[in-house]
Amino acid sequence: MAAEPSGKPHVLIVGGGFAGLHCAKELAKADVDITLADRQNHHLFQPLLYQVATAVLSPADIASPIRRILRNQSNTRVVLAKLTDVDLDNQRGFFPNAELPYDYLVLATGATHSYFGRDDWAELAPGLKTIDDALEIRRQVLLAYEAAEWEADEQSRQAKLTFVVVGGGPTGVELAGALKEIALQAIPKDFRHIDTTTAQVMLVEAGDRLLAALPEKLGRRAQRDLEKMGVQVKLNSAVTEICAGSVHIGEQVVPVENVIWAAGVRGSKIAEKFDAELDRSGRIKVANDLSLPKHPNVFVAGDLAHIVDPKTGAPVPGVAPAAMQMGRHVANQIKRELKKSNSARQLFRYRDKGGMATIGRNRAVATIAGLNFSGIFAWWVWSLVHIIPLIDFRSKLSVIFSWVWSYFSLSKNARLITGRRKMQVKSALGRVAED
Amino acid sequence: MAAEPSGKPHVLIVGGGFAGLHCAKELAKADVDITLADRQNHHLFQPLLYQVATAVLSPADIASPIRRILRNQSNTRVVLAKLTDVDLDNQRGFFPNAELPYDYLVLATGATHSYFGRDDWAELAPGLKTIDDALEIRRQVLLAYEAAEWEADEQSRQAKLTFVVVGGGPTGVELAGALKEIALQAIPKDFRHIDTTTAQVMLVEAGDRLLAALPEKLGRRAQRDLEKMGVQVKLNSAVTEICAGSVHIGEQVVPVENVIWAAGVRGSKIAEKFDAELDRSGRIKVANDLSLPKHPNVFVAGDLAHIVDPKTGAPVPGVAPAAMQMGRHVANQIKRELKKSNSARQLFRYRDKGGMATIGRNRAVATIAGLNFSGIFAWWVWSLVHIIPLIDFRSKLSVIFSWVWSYFSLSKNARLITGRRKMQVKSALGRVAED
Repeated sequence: MAAEPSGKPHVLIVGGGFAGLHCAKELAKADVDITLADRQNHHLFQPLLYQVATAVLSPADIASPIRRILRNQSNTRVVLAKLTDVDLDNQRGFFPNAELPYDYLVLATGATHSYFGRDDWAELAPGLKTIDDALEIRRQVLLAYEAAEWEADEQSRQAKLTFVVVGGGPTGVELAGALKEIALQAIPKDFRHIDTTTAQVMLVEAGDRLLAALPEKLGRRAQRDLEKMGVQVKLNSAVTEICAGSVHIGEQVVPVENVIWAAGVRGSKIAEKFDAELDRSGRIKVANDLSLPKHPNVFVAGDLAHIVDPKTGAPVPGVAPAAMQMGRHVANQIKRELKKSNSARQLFRYRDKGGMATIGRNRAVATIAGLNFSGIFAWWVWSLVHIIPLIDFRSKLSVIFSWVWSYFSLSKNARLITGRRKMQVKSALGRVAED
Repeated sequence: MAAEPSGKPHVLIVGGGFAGLHCAKELAKADVDITLADRQNHHLFQPLLYQVATAVLSPADIASPIRRILRNQSNTRVVLAKLTDVDLDNQRGFFPNAELPYDYLVLATGATHSYFGRDDWAELAPGLKTIDDALEIRRQVLLAYEAAEWEADEQSRQAKLTFVVVGGGPTGVELAGALKEIALQAIPKDFRHIDTTTAQVMLVEAGDRLLAALPEKLGRRAQRDLEKMGVQVKLNSAVTEICAGSVHIGEQVVPVENVIWAAGVRGSKIAEKFDAELDRSGRIKVANDLSLPKHPNVFVAGDLAHIVDPKTGAPVPGVAPAAMQMGRHVANQIKRELKKSNSARQLFRYRDKGGMATIGRNRAVATIAGLNFSGIFAWWVWSLVHIIPLIDFRSKLSVIFSWVWSYFSLSKNARLITGRRKMQVKSALGRVAED
């Protein structure tokens, strides 16, 4: 499948996340041919992914086929394919069964989780980046209770009823809160032998506070709220080893069968092929217009781009609003250049709109335009802010419906154990649940 | 985990489908201890499973955790476990890490698909019995279009755009109709290189008509409706071979990359351990009270039971209403026996409430109380009949919402390619979509 021989400049966008998708949309009216390639067929609203992992939402509530989103954008075609290599000099991107020439390349392949060199932990402590990740975590959490219900030995049962979340950023905080809600509210009446309210949830953070990207006050508030719910928050605590059945936190060995990884991120591997300097997390250090140094027709947008915000002196954070802004910025540079009226590149300026994290029912923390909020008001703001940008009207309705339902019923609707993965064989229940 | 030492009779129900669940519910007030064991954690509303496979519904819309359904039934505990063996003389059921004694055993493990001795076809022609099956079919159907969009060779592209459904019962008819709707209505605007309306759907049936369980008139009507939509219906046609890339229908070799199996069913394997005569499909020939010959305290209910309906002389069909009736019948026999007022067993009498199949938007066929319906009225009846028995109010709302939405938007909402299975490697797109 070659590029259309239309003669128009060809913009190759790799990645259909917030950056890639918003870049494509901003180019809707431009006189270019766009190819958007992603190795998944769907755009994912990642900020709500933890709710799939904790059985509140179904995958289809927060994911839509990319080609459906762009169906009416006639200058754009969507392909399901993974970029495997690039030839920057000859301007060609390589895919497993095709190569595509480009005039502009926008690399927006994002980040994945990083185990800080301990990739062997990946099987024991799954991370949360894709729908498959979320379904795997959901599966393990639900299986843990099932296994505990069978378990005769008190000590083993307690290990099965212990959940350790590694990493005190928004994902870790939100997962820990939701896991505690499951134990306290959603399932106690469903089990006969175990008291699910005794399940322990531990949130482990290497730094001295939670939510490092938000004001310190909010990090403390989130910690107090979590502790009120019964979550054990362990600050200044590094995970030094993860084995089947236990996790080492500093010197302490905690017997636990469920570990979830929400700690490090690492730029996607393809970055190494781009002849550019990477930061410690494998993200590409871009020029201040988001282009690749030495290759002005290649841009990097979203979580994969490392750029320092001159206002704060810190790198622009890997959050959805930053990715959208970068995607649109790149699109605008391309449009300006094609018009030739004003081809000087503009600097990318990050507009920090604040940040937030939800902790549980009626509990959240948020900072917006320099103002800090917490409690039920922050929770309402959090809910609104996460409904509005959902990609289509149907998703909005469906998510609202699920939230209203779980709010009043205290139940989690999508408690399905599906899939049959490697992990299952290792779980205590593997033999039971297998075919 | 042993049975409770309550001294009450212990009823062990194996299988949480329609038969097992309705048996347990009918025993809600009985003075017994009940254990319901299933190898899945969820009860599945199988009549709508094809809508998960065709991206209309999400799994959580039609499946609920069994322990949630029975949470308020205090005499019942639910365990996630697969029955591996039974000792009929000593009245014990064996599970991978436990054995449970029983006073009554209700075997309701249902049926799976049968490839008539060609189990090697399973990988090439997936069947539809579980949520995982449905997600795998959804995945393959969606990947077929993605692969076709990349494919330069005209002949290979046509093979990727051909879907063969084997078996002209309700599942086959409903799948064929829904697959054609996807091609004609849901996705044409989403692709740039292929015309999805040229996708071919072929429904292959060995017998001389569709929907053999319904009146002949309705089978003919379903055929006409499918043909009007563009489905090729091939009657008196046996599939003699399935290879990667083609299927042999009699003497004809059809190049096709997508085959779905909706033909034979076979009783679940555990039946072989029950010291009873099996029919050709591996179902247990039960006594006329549904008990196991020679073992009156063991019952078989649902799809696994073979019993001849004296009214028609034909076996009771493997449909949801029959399974529910059997489950309740068994529960009533147990209750009568425990009351000792009247311990003589009652014969099971199947009350045939009719049957139906939907073909597409506004098209269905139904027979109820001897009256035949087709067209839009039958379609409304079909919709109502499939909403009412959904297990909880939330599922009903959610399914109604999805149906109303797809009815007016002509779209299929859950078009997600997720999971990473064996099959993927074999698909033309395997290399593209893999990590």
